[in-house]
Amino acid sequence: MDGPTDDRTTPSRVSRRAVLGGLGAAGGLLGVGALPGVAGAASGAGTPGSTTSRVVPFHGRHQAGIVDPAPRHATVAAFDVTAADRSGLRSLLEAWTIAAERMTRGLPAGPVLDATRSPNDPGEAMGLGPSGLTITLGIGASLLSGDHAARFGLLGRRPAALADLPPFEGDALVERWSGGDLVVQACSDDAQVAFHAIHALAVTGAGLVRTRWSLDGFLGTSRGTESPTPRNLMGFKDGTVNPAPAQFDRIVWADAEPRWMRGGSYLVVRRIRMDLAQWDAETLDDQEETIGRIRSTGAPLSGGTETSAPILRGPGSDRILPSAHIRVVSPAANRGARLLRRGYNYSAGATETGALDAGLLFLAYQRDPREQFVPLQARMATTDALRTYLTTVGSGVYAVLPGVRPGRSYADLLLG
Amino acid sequence: MDGPTDDRTTPSRVSRRAVLGGLGAAGGLLGVGALPGVAGAASGAGTPGSTTSRVVPFHGRHQAGIVDPAPRHATVAAFDVTAADRSGLRSLLEAWTIAAERMTRGLPAGPVLDATRSPNDPGEAMGLGPSGLTITLGIGASLLSGDHAARFGLLGRRPAALADLPPFEGDALVERWSGGDLVVQACSDDAQVAFHAIHALAVTGAGLVRTRWSLDGFLGTSRGTESPTPRNLMGFKDGTVNPAPAQFDRIVWADAEPRWMRGGSYLVVRRIRMDLAQWDAETLDDQEETIGRIRSTGAPLSGGTETSAPILRGPGSDRILPSAHIRVVSPAANRGARLLRRGYNYSAGATETGALDAGLLFLAYQRDPREQFVPLQARMATTDALRTYLTTVGSGVYAVLPGVRPGRSYADLLLG
Repeated sequence: MDGPTDDRTTPSRVSRRAVLGGLGAAGGLLGVGALPGVAGAASGAGTPGSTTSRVVPFHGRHQAGIVDPAPRHATVAAFDVTAADRSGLRSLLEAWTIAAERMTRGLPAGPVLDATRSPNDPGEAMGLGPSGLTITLGIGASLLSGDHAARFGLLGRRPAALADLPPFEGDALVERWSGGDLVVQACSDDAQVAFHAIHALAVTGAGLVRTRWSLDGFLGTSRGTESPTPRNLMGFKDGTVNPAPAQFDRIVWADAEPRWMRGGSYLVVRRIRMDLAQWDAETLDDQEETIGRIRSTGAPLSGGTETSAPILRGPGSDRILPSAHIRVVSPAANRGARLLRRGYNYSAGATETGALDAGLLFLAYQRDPREQFVPLQARMATTDALRTYLTTVGSGVYAVLPGVRPGRSYADLLLG
Repeated sequence: MDGPTDDRTTPSRVSRRAVLGGLGAAGGLLGVGALPGVAGAASGAGTPGSTTSRVVPFHGRHQAGIVDPAPRHATVAAFDVTAADRSGLRSLLEAWTIAAERMTRGLPAGPVLDATRSPNDPGEAMGLGPSGLTITLGIGASLLSGDHAARFGLLGRRPAALADLPPFEGDALVERWSGGDLVVQACSDDAQVAFHAIHALAVTGAGLVRTRWSLDGFLGTSRGTESPTPRNLMGFKDGTVNPAPAQFDRIVWADAEPRWMRGGSYLVVRRIRMDLAQWDAETLDDQEETIGRIRSTGAPLSGGTETSAPILRGPGSDRILPSAHIRVVSPAANRGARLLRRGYNYSAGATETGALDAGLLFLAYQRDPREQFVPLQARMATTDALRTYLTTVGSGVYAVLPGVRPGRSYADLLLG
């Protein structure tokens, strides 16, 4: 849709090109956030004050979509690599780099080709602008192990931190919602832009990958006079105590070894179904004791406001029960272990028993899952009062590559 | 969350009550659309220019959610009634009326109870405002037939227009995605508000209904300089030729018989899976010939702009092939039969063959499906070039009640 191979130059194409064509670099220089000088032009006939034109830079030391604020929508998908060899994998990763970088600038995944060929882009994001899109790529252990690793020349590349997750009490994992050679997290202000990113990568990777699973997530968007912490589908604010930027080096970014993961992170994905019928039938008192917080305000039951530290020891601490969620997962109870959570709510139809199939698309970034997610989850799975209402039905852990530098690609990072 | 039974009066509750408590009536008087005088107050710390405070009136001659413009998100769910008798069905419909009316004003589904009881509202929409929510209720034939109708004293109530849909060529219907005694379409500017409406109705109807199916839909939101017609997941604009308000009486609103459906409509829901991998592999030329329009602009291949009438006869008509979608479904080819479409895109994970399970949540309102949807679909299913790429996997037809007058309920409309 840019460049001399455009087949049908229409007014709308001209205007998209004029508005967006040269913006990527500017976005990169300006950093995360809206481009005020361009917003008016790009939103045009769109919603007043829309976030159409918001660009999150693709390039950087770290991938986008990790520590930047989570926008309202996500589509997260895992792919299995069907490429025959290392060169096929390289082609895939190079093509995905180009496509991802373009889409985060609001461009089609590839230049528009002659109309006698298949489009490079499936098209449903035409006119929607970048919409804050981030695309974050992770590598599953299955790509770095056994036959796969041999086929792609990746034997010995598996980071120690990318250990398989152990089984946890109460898990009921479904194979087709778990694992995958590659995972892509696409986040955007616009649900269609997030879906399109996954769709376009599937098109770009046709013949080299197959889609293993995909799940869409959403967050409430318009928080009125409340705090911006979104609510989960149990009705409680979730994410109040996420780490602050000063803690990212200690909590989020991978250790120095292996070198190719420097600046990367590890992502744990869990598809956690909530037994909403059971939860909704509990009294508000019981719900609040289960969580340890007041539903309406998010304040801990020990008092204060949403951002007050829960009182977990000494006078005033008895209102937060031993099994209360916030006590069980508190860093104090877990030798300081913390996660950067970036979860979304999901809705996936109805279960066979006539309930809503909905819950939490848990996404957590960390330096080393063996020291962070695994002990936290092991504790939750055995002692957290919430566990009664939660069933994890999908799971995966992925090595999230460092950021791509301009002129480089995902392939350079993984394959050298 | 309003009224004297509030248990914990928090600052945020006070402000929600102050902002929203008395708004319902005002919304009703002002008609569909935003309430400009209130927007600033209600959006508060929310997104600049957000649609948080937009109210679509619940009461009226027709239900909302039919002819008002479709907002970005929908959750559509079908329920089967498990109530034991007519009085149970009446309780359900009365409770749903109250809950629906409240939620469209941005209030919880029911007043907040003492914390020793289960909440009336599952809570995840707290702080999100009305967000343009509409809730539209339809009655499935299964509630008006056989044992069900006998149990609920509804024998003889089934409208002739609520005939079962015939089987169509190429359908591959899945029982658990089809039918249902009741259908609820919740549309909102906010995905979480739409989901919450369905969730809250499930809570309100606990013991009286079970969820049969549910599907979330989305539309691209921010159309830049393009026309506002949204694009489907095949990348084409969809809905260009929807009827105008002057045609609603002839196309949308039910006939005078039966009397209880006066001001109502009939809704056909189809879950149409797109074979995106096959579609995306076609050349742009082939895609455009299949549809009969140019992908980028939406203009018919016979020339002009998106809103130009396609030339279907005489000179210039040959560019639109006999099997082109827009020719096959054109009113001229269907004795004037038209539908008011309100479709959404859906994404529902991956298929077992490694493709995206995505497509169109087709929603079409009409006066009489026997004269509108059925002949159109029969023609499409046999001659439309698009049919190669589409598989209908879920289906339902519902009698959509007329609007509820203030002080009345869904139960009054259906049960008298």
